[in-house]
Amino acid sequence: MTEHPFAELFEPLQIGPVCAPNRFYQVAHCNGMGHRMPQALAALRGIKAEGGWGVVCTEEVEIHPSGDLSPCFEGRLWDQDDAPALRLMADAVKQQGALAAIQLVHNGVDAPNLYSRLTPIGPRSQGVIGGSGYEPAQTRRMDKRDIAELRAWHRQAARHARQIGFDIIYAYCGHGLSLPFHFLSRRFNDRSDEYGGSLQNRSRLLRELLEDLHDEVGDRCAVALRFSIDELLGPAGIEAGAEGQDLIGLLADLPDLWDVNISGWSNDSLPSRFGASGFQDAYTRLVKSITGKPVVGVGRYTSPDHMLKLIRSGHLDLIGAARPSIADPFLPNKIRELRLEDIRECIGCNICVAADNRSVPIRCSQNPTMGEEWRRGWHPERVDPLDSPTKLLVVGGGPAGLEAALTAARRGADVMLAEAGTQLGGHLRHWSALPGMREWMRVVDWRMTQLQRLPNVAIYPDNPLSADDILALEIDDVIIATGSRWRRDGHGRSYPHGIELAGASIPVLSPDEVGAQRTINGHCLIVDDDHYLMASLLAEQLAVAGTRVTLITSAPQVAIWSQNTLEQSRTQARLMKLGVDIRVQHRLLALQDQSARLQHEISADALSMDIDALLLVTDREPNRRLYDALIAAGANQRFRSLQLIGDAEAPGLLAHAVFSGHLAARSLARPEAQTPLRGAAFRRELPRSVLAG
Amino acid sequence: MTEHPFAELFEPLQIGPVCAPNRFYQVAHCNGMGHRMPQALAALRGIKAEGGWGVVCTEEVEIHPSGDLSPCFEGRLWDQDDAPALRLMADAVKQQGALAAIQLVHNGVDAPNLYSRLTPIGPRSQGVIGGSGYEPAQTRRMDKRDIAELRAWHRQAARHARQIGFDIIYAYCGHGLSLPFHFLSRRFNDRSDEYGGSLQNRSRLLRELLEDLHDEVGDRCAVALRFSIDELLGPAGIEAGAEGQDLIGLLADLPDLWDVNISGWSNDSLPSRFGASGFQDAYTRLVKSITGKPVVGVGRYTSPDHMLKLIRSGHLDLIGAARPSIADPFLPNKIRELRLEDIRECIGCNICVAADNRSVPIRCSQNPTMGEEWRRGWHPERVDPLDSPTKLLVVGGGPAGLEAALTAARRGADVMLAEAGTQLGGHLRHWSALPGMREWMRVVDWRMTQLQRLPNVAIYPDNPLSADDILALEIDDVIIATGSRWRRDGHGRSYPHGIELAGASIPVLSPDEVGAQRTINGHCLIVDDDHYLMASLLAEQLAVAGTRVTLITSAPQVAIWSQNTLEQSRTQARLMKLGVDIRVQHRLLALQDQSARLQHEISADALSMDIDALLLVTDREPNRRLYDALIAAGANQRFRSLQLIGDAEAPGLLAHAVFSGHLAARSLARPEAQTPLRGAAFRRELPRSVLAG
Repeated sequence: MTEHPFAELFEPLQIGPVCAPNRFYQVAHCNGMGHRMPQALAALRGIKAEGGWGVVCTEEVEIHPSGDLSPCFEGRLWDQDDAPALRLMADAVKQQGALAAIQLVHNGVDAPNLYSRLTPIGPRSQGVIGGSGYEPAQTRRMDKRDIAELRAWHRQAARHARQIGFDIIYAYCGHGLSLPFHFLSRRFNDRSDEYGGSLQNRSRLLRELLEDLHDEVGDRCAVALRFSIDELLGPAGIEAGAEGQDLIGLLADLPDLWDVNISGWSNDSLPSRFGASGFQDAYTRLVKSITGKPVVGVGRYTSPDHMLKLIRSGHLDLIGAARPSIADPFLPNKIRELRLEDIRECIGCNICVAADNRSVPIRCSQNPTMGEEWRRGWHPERVDPLDSPTKLLVVGGGPAGLEAALTAARRGADVMLAEAGTQLGGHLRHWSALPGMREWMRVVDWRMTQLQRLPNVAIYPDNPLSADDILALEIDDVIIATGSRWRRDGHGRSYPHGIELAGASIPVLSPDEVGAQRTINGHCLIVDDDHYLMASLLAEQLAVAGTRVTLITSAPQVAIWSQNTLEQSRTQARLMKLGVDIRVQHRLLALQDQSARLQHEISADALSMDIDALLLVTDREPNRRLYDALIAAGANQRFRSLQLIGDAEAPGLLAHAVFSGHLAARSLARPEAQTPLRGAAFRRELPRSVLAG
Repeated sequence: MTEHPFAELFEPLQIGPVCAPNRFYQVAHCNGMGHRMPQALAALRGIKAEGGWGVVCTEEVEIHPSGDLSPCFEGRLWDQDDAPALRLMADAVKQQGALAAIQLVHNGVDAPNLYSRLTPIGPRSQGVIGGSGYEPAQTRRMDKRDIAELRAWHRQAARHARQIGFDIIYAYCGHGLSLPFHFLSRRFNDRSDEYGGSLQNRSRLLRELLEDLHDEVGDRCAVALRFSIDELLGPAGIEAGAEGQDLIGLLADLPDLWDVNISGWSNDSLPSRFGASGFQDAYTRLVKSITGKPVVGVGRYTSPDHMLKLIRSGHLDLIGAARPSIADPFLPNKIRELRLEDIRECIGCNICVAADNRSVPIRCSQNPTMGEEWRRGWHPERVDPLDSPTKLLVVGGGPAGLEAALTAARRGADVMLAEAGTQLGGHLRHWSALPGMREWMRVVDWRMTQLQRLPNVAIYPDNPLSADDILALEIDDVIIATGSRWRRDGHGRSYPHGIELAGASIPVLSPDEVGAQRTINGHCLIVDDDHYLMASLLAEQLAVAGTRVTLITSAPQVAIWSQNTLEQSRTQARLMKLGVDIRVQHRLLALQDQSARLQHEISADALSMDIDALLLVTDREPNRRLYDALIAAGANQRFRSLQLIGDAEAPGLLAHAVFSGHLAARSLARPEAQTPLRGAAFRRELPRSVLAG
C-alpha cells in the first residue's frame, strides 16, 4: 500500500504530557460569541474537531474582572461560575478525539474594564490602549502585591481550566494585548525594579506565569506559550532578529509548546489584499532552531503542499490556523481523504474579524454555516436531504445563486442554474479583478468546481430568462439571484435625494462601468458613500494607471468600515502613497458642467473643483425586474416557492450573498421558503443570574 | 394647612384607561443593559419608581429579529421567550405604585441585523443608517405583505406586553430610528403607493399601528405615541412649524398620550455645553394646542419651579425626564418632601449616553449607584450603617474625596476631610471654568451642600498633610484622593517614550498651567493625546481670546471619544468656526527652538511649523506621593484600611472618580477596603439557552 502523500500531517505529536492526534492546530481566535453564547461557540469548536483539527483552542479567555474586555465578547474564566460555559466547548472538542486548549489572559493596559469598572492595571500609569483605543482612563502602576495577585488569578484560572478538562493551557504574550507582553515591551514598561530594565527582568513575569502553570497543572496539561516574535515596528518594538529571538532563547524549553506569530492583530490576520499565504514564514522560521519544544505557527495556510513543506523542512511541528479553519472546518479531513479540490480556501477578506470587532457572532464569506452551527443547526458538510423529488430553477450565477444551487443540489434537488451572461461569478468577477482582490474569486471557483461534479445540476450560461420563460418551465421552486447595479444618480445614505447632476458636461460613471479595465484621463472625482472597499480599490486602480484622483467621503476616514476588517490604515496609506487626494467629511452638492461643488460636512464650508469624470460609489439598485414580473404574473401561486436572494433582494456584503443563497436552499420545502422573512427562527441564549466574585 | 407649593406636580392624571399617580414621567432611555441584563435593569427602573416617578418606561424594545439593533443592547420582545426579562422590570415598577410603560419599535432602516442576519427592511432600498452608520448593507423595499407582517408583529408584541403587565404601550416615531418615522420622512420614503407621497399617506403606517394598538390592548392599556416634532434639519427634515404640527393635527386624539421631543438623539440628549435645561420648550410648546390628549415632554428639567411653570402654563401635562432621573432617581420624592436642596441635578455630561453607545451598563457622573443597583446592591439614597464607631480621614477635596467623605459620613463615620488648597472641588474647579462647563460644578456643589449639613463631618481646607501628620492622628481608616497633574513631557498612549522637547526655546505648558485664565500670544500648538474634551475646551478658550491655535491629534477626529457623549460634531464645528487649525492623524516628533516637527500617522509625511507655545494634553501623573510615603511608613499596618482613590489611583473620567470615592466608602470596614482591587465582587447575568422563533 502506498504511503499517504500527506502522511506527515497526520502523525501524532507529544506536547508535554498530552498527545496531539495530528498536526492540524486551530489556534486561538475570537468569534464575537465568547462568554455570551457558549452553546453556539461549543458547537462551532466541536465541528472543527469533527473536521479533523487535532487541537482546538478557545479565544483569549479573561481571568479576572480587572482584565475585562467588554464590550468585546471573548472567553471568560473569572471564577467557577464560568466553568459550565467553557466545559461545553471542551467536551465538544474532546468528544471528537481532539485536544482542547485554553488561552488564559489578563489584558492589562488593553483592558478598559468598561463593564467591571475596576481600575485598569499595567506596568506603569498610562492611558489604556484597548476598547476604542481612546478610552479616557489610565492604568494603575502595578506594585508587588498586584503582581502576586495576578499570578494567583492565573493559577486559579489554570486550576479551573484543568478541572473543566482542558489539555493545553496557555500563557499569552502576544499582539500587544496581554500583561506579560506589556511587561516585556519597553513601550509599556519603564520600571526600575526587577520587572523592568533588562530583557531578563522584563520577561520575569512571563517566566513566573509559565512556572506557575507547570507547577499548578503541568502534570496533566501541556503548558503553551503564545508569543508574538515581531511587531513590525522596527526597533520601536519587539523584532524577530533581536529581542524576539532572545526571548525564545531565554525561555527556550520552559513551555511545552511555542505558538508563535507576529503582532499586532492587523499584521497577524493580514488581509489577502496585503499578503499571501505564508506571510509569517520569514519571521517564524528561526524558532525551531532555538527551542527543542514543538512549534506551531500560522500564515493563512490552505495549501496541503505548503503545509507538508513546513513540516518536512522542520519549520513548524504543527500547522496553525484560524481563518482557514473558519472557511473550512473540515480542511484536515479533506486532506486525509485526498479530497483536495473540496477544500474551501479562505479568501482573506477578514469578514470573520469584522464580526468580532462589531461584537456580533462570527461569519465567513466562504462558509455560510460559520456561526450558525448551534442556533440554526447548520453543519458545514451535511444538509438535510429533501423528502421528495424537487425541480429547482436558480436564476443568476453570482455568489448567491451559486451557493443556492450547490446547497439545493446537495439536498437532492434537480437544479437548473441559468445565467444571463456568458460567464458565471456575478459581481465578484469584476470585483476580484481589482487590485489585490484575486483570492476572492475562490468563492466562485470552489462552487463551480463542486457544481460541475454533481450529476443533478445543469448550468446554462448566456441564458437570459423572462418571466414567461420561467412560467412555462416544469419546475417546483424558483430562486431569483439577479444581483444589483451601482446607482448613477447619487442616491445613498448620505444623499437621500441623490445628487444634482443634470447640468453635468462630463461622464458620470459607476463602478459597473469603470470595472477593472477602463482608464480615465484627467481628473476623476470619486464620491464614496459606500465606505467599504470599492471606492478605494477603484481609486487605487485609476491612480496606478495615471488618473489624477480625488476621493471624497462623508465619513471621517476613507474606507471607514474597513477598520473592522483591519484594512483601513493600509488602504489609506496605499492611497496616500499613490497621491490620491483624500477629502474626508465632504459631500458633493452638485455637478455643473465640469465643476464639482463640494461642502464640508461639519463646517458647511463650500469649495469647487474642476473635474473630467465623476465616479459615484453610492447605493446599489437591486435587479428585481424579473422577480417583480414573476410576482405580477402570479408565480407565487404557480410555484411551491419563489425566493429573491442576495444582492437582488438587498445589496450587501459577499458574506451576506452567500449566506442568503445557503439559507434559501436550506429553506426549500419548508414554510419559510414561502416568505421573504426567511431565517427568523433560530435558537438564542438568554441571560440567567449568578453571583460572581 | 398650607397647600403644597408644588401640588400640581403631584396630581394624578388619567391617560386613556390608566391613571398616572403624579406628573413625573421617566421617558424611554437606553442603558447599555437591555435584554442582556434584565435583573440589573429591573432594579434600576424599580428604584426610579420608588423615588417617585409616576410612570417608568423601558428603552426602545425590538419587536422582531428583522429589527435587530445588535451590538447595542436595547429591550427585546421578539417572542414570549423575552417575556420573563421584561416582567422583572414591569413588576419592579408596579410594586412601587407607578405605571410601567413599554416602547415597542421596529427600527427598519436603522437596524443592521448584525446578529439575526435577516435582511434589513425599509420604505425603499437604501443603505442602512444604523450600527456604525456605515454598515455595508441595504434594506429591502417593503411590499404590502411586509407591511402586513410588521403590523402583525406589532400587535403580537403589544399582546405580550399587556400580558406581562405593562400599562402604557407605545408606538414609536422618533429620532430617525423607527419604521413609522422612516415612512413619515421624505428622506427615506420615495414610494408612490398609498404609503408614500402626501403626509396623510406617509403617516398611514403610523396611524395603522396606533389603531392596531387600540384594537389589541386599548381596553386596558394606554396607547402612547413618541414623536419627534422637529429634526433641526430645516426644510430637509420634519419641522415643528410645518409637518411636525401637521402630523399632530392629523392624529390629534388618536393616541392616549403624546410623548414629544426633537430628533436626532444628539439634539434630544443635548449636552449641557450646548444648551441649558428647557432647550426643547420652543419646539414642544404648541403640541397641547393641537391635541386634547395629555402631553409629556423633556428638556433635562431639574428645577421644580420650571416644572411647575410648565404644568401651570399648560405647556405640558407630564414632566418627562431621562437624564435627570438618572442623576437623581428620587427627584420626585425630594420635591414632594420639599427637600429641594437634596436634588442631585444632572450636569448634562452624557456619560450615561456614552455607556449605551459603548454597549456597557449605564453610569452617571453625579449618581455613582446608577447601574449598580442589582449587581452591587447599591441604593442611591440608602447605605449600610457602620457597625462600630469609625474615624475616617479623607485627604483631598476633589470629586472622589468629596464623594468618599459624604458616603462614609452617611454610613455614620466621623469624617475629617483635609484639602491642601484653599478651595474644595479639585480639578473640577478648573475644568468647570472652561467654556460651557459651568454645570459640571454641580457635582462639587451638591456634595458640599450635603456635607455641610452633616454633624459628623469636619472639613479642613488649606490643610496640606504629610505622612507623619497622618500617622500621628487618632483615626481608623484613611482614604487618599490627592488627584493628578497633567504631564508636561508628552507621555501618553501615542507617545510611550514622551516627546523630544529638550531643545525647546518656547513655553511648554499643560492644562494645569493654562487653566481658565491664561492667554497665550502668537501661535499655540495643542497636542491632544487625551481625545476627550480637555484639548478642545482649551482650544476654544484660547481661540476666543485671540490666540492662533493649531490642534493635532493622532486620532482620525478631534475629540474622537466625545462621539460617545454626542459632542464630537458640535465640538468640531465650534473649533472650525473659531478658525482652529485641526490636523488629525498627526503626531509631534520633536520641538527644537520654536520649530515643531510633525508627522502624519499614516503616510509618515513630515512637516514643520513655527509656534510660540506648546500645550500638551497627554497623560496625567497621579499624585501618589503622600500615599506612597504612607505605605513606606507602614501605614497599612497602622490603620484598618488605607485606600487610594480617584485620579490619584488612576486618572480617568469624572464619573470614575465619583464611583471610586463611593466604592471606597461602601468598602469601609469590609475586607475589600484592604486591597487595591476593590469592587471585584458583583453579581452577573450569564446565558442560558432557549429556542426562539
